[in-house]
Amino acid sequence: MSKKALCIMSGGMDSTLAAFMMKEKGYEIIALHFNYDQLTQKKELECFENISKALGVKNSYNLDLDFFKQIGASALIDESIEVPISGVEEGVPVTYVPFRNGIFLSIAGAIAEKEGCSVLSIGVVEEDSSGYPDCREEFINSIENSINLGTATEIKVKIEMPLVNLKKSEIVKEAIKSNVPLHLTWSCYKNSNKACGVCDSCRLRLNGFNVAGLSDPIEYV
Amino acid sequence: MSKKALCIMSGGMDSTLAAFMMKEKGYEIIALHFNYDQLTQKKELECFENISKALGVKNSYNLDLDFFKQIGASALIDESIEVPISGVEEGVPVTYVPFRNGIFLSIAGAIAEKEGCSVLSIGVVEEDSSGYPDCREEFINSIENSINLGTATEIKVKIEMPLVNLKKSEIVKEAIKSNVPLHLTWSCYKNSNKACGVCDSCRLRLNGFNVAGLSDPIEYV
Repeated sequence: MSKKALCIMSGGMDSTLAAFMMKEKGYEIIALHFNYDQLTQKKELECFENISKALGVKNSYNLDLDFFKQIGASALIDESIEVPISGVEEGVPVTYVPFRNGIFLSIAGAIAEKEGCSVLSIGVVEEDSSGYPDCREEFINSIENSINLGTATEIKVKIEMPLVNLKKSEIVKEAIKSNVPLHLTWSCYKNSNKACGVCDSCRLRLNGFNVAGLSDPIEYV
Repeated sequence: MSKKALCIMSGGMDSTLAAFMMKEKGYEIIALHFNYDQLTQKKELECFENISKALGVKNSYNLDLDFFKQIGASALIDESIEVPISGVEEGVPVTYVPFRNGIFLSIAGAIAEKEGCSVLSIGVVEEDSSGYPDCREEFINSIENSINLGTATEIKVKIEMPLVNLKKSEIVKEAIKSNVPLHLTWSCYKNSNKACGVCDSCRLRLNGFNVAGLSDPIEYV
């Protein structure tokens, strides 16, 4: 069995913890990051590189997906759509990027085939999340099946989503317990030096620390 | 029901016929083409544009997928791997691009969601093909399910693959019968003004015309 895991890492808390969990299981980590003209592209890439170093990653892919801009349709890419700051609402928010994880996982499937990885990790969180349809366990299981049907290799890829059923507070506790360097991570949707504290992503993160009774090591405005 | 079909069009014979079949069914066609640093990128794009004109397309996406070069691992992208010219062999050939149709369909799924398309077409051919795993009906059905699970819209996307069970000779006959402008299409894997006639793709095309008892309107070396 291959002991290589391809870990999709955004630079955020969830995918960082997922990658550290794969390392803890003994996998050699191949790190995968995507730039898709998101507002926080530069900051996320910097975090990805620092986290990769902390993980001891030797092989990494940093892919430019410029075409996302041509698809648009999200506040995270299209600067004419405002990032909401008044609280997490019901339904699919304007920060939703159409089928982002589907595209990410398909590209990851191609790399996993090329590199002979038996595992692919993604930090999706279903329940305590922003309500994106491509963060649901049922979707991830379906695309795992698609990847295995559509690739040539004899190695079957298993998509690990160790956080899918956790609450943000549980993720915070688990990360702190495992010495995951959360000070190197970035969750905010806005492009600034300090996290805004009021976008959906900051709210979910801060609430997680709050419920866990722990304090967030990153700086807020 | 939406009457828009998003048609993935490479500039080749199969995807061209598939798009004309969608038009015949009454759909408004949105054309989608991918540049992925394939050897024949320039030629394929030229064909795509001419075919789109012939189809009367008003809305089209021409996306640059530069990251394919970073994945590599195919004779169609990596110039250090020779395109075979001695005949179609058993198994997955070196021209296979890892999970290409998986990536194409995921991106198409995002655009279909944004544009509100109820149908997405792809010109895959399973039996009489080059033996790529991501051209099989079972795979396409699986990724259709993944796209519908992972996207937000209420519209369900149906992936149409009208040629999947046809032989190349049947595709040629159908295209000629329906006045599809085959002289505008390109199938050759090599980058030249005239088709080489000896790569797998040329061989499959020429054999199709031969079995159909028809002559190919494009020029060969």
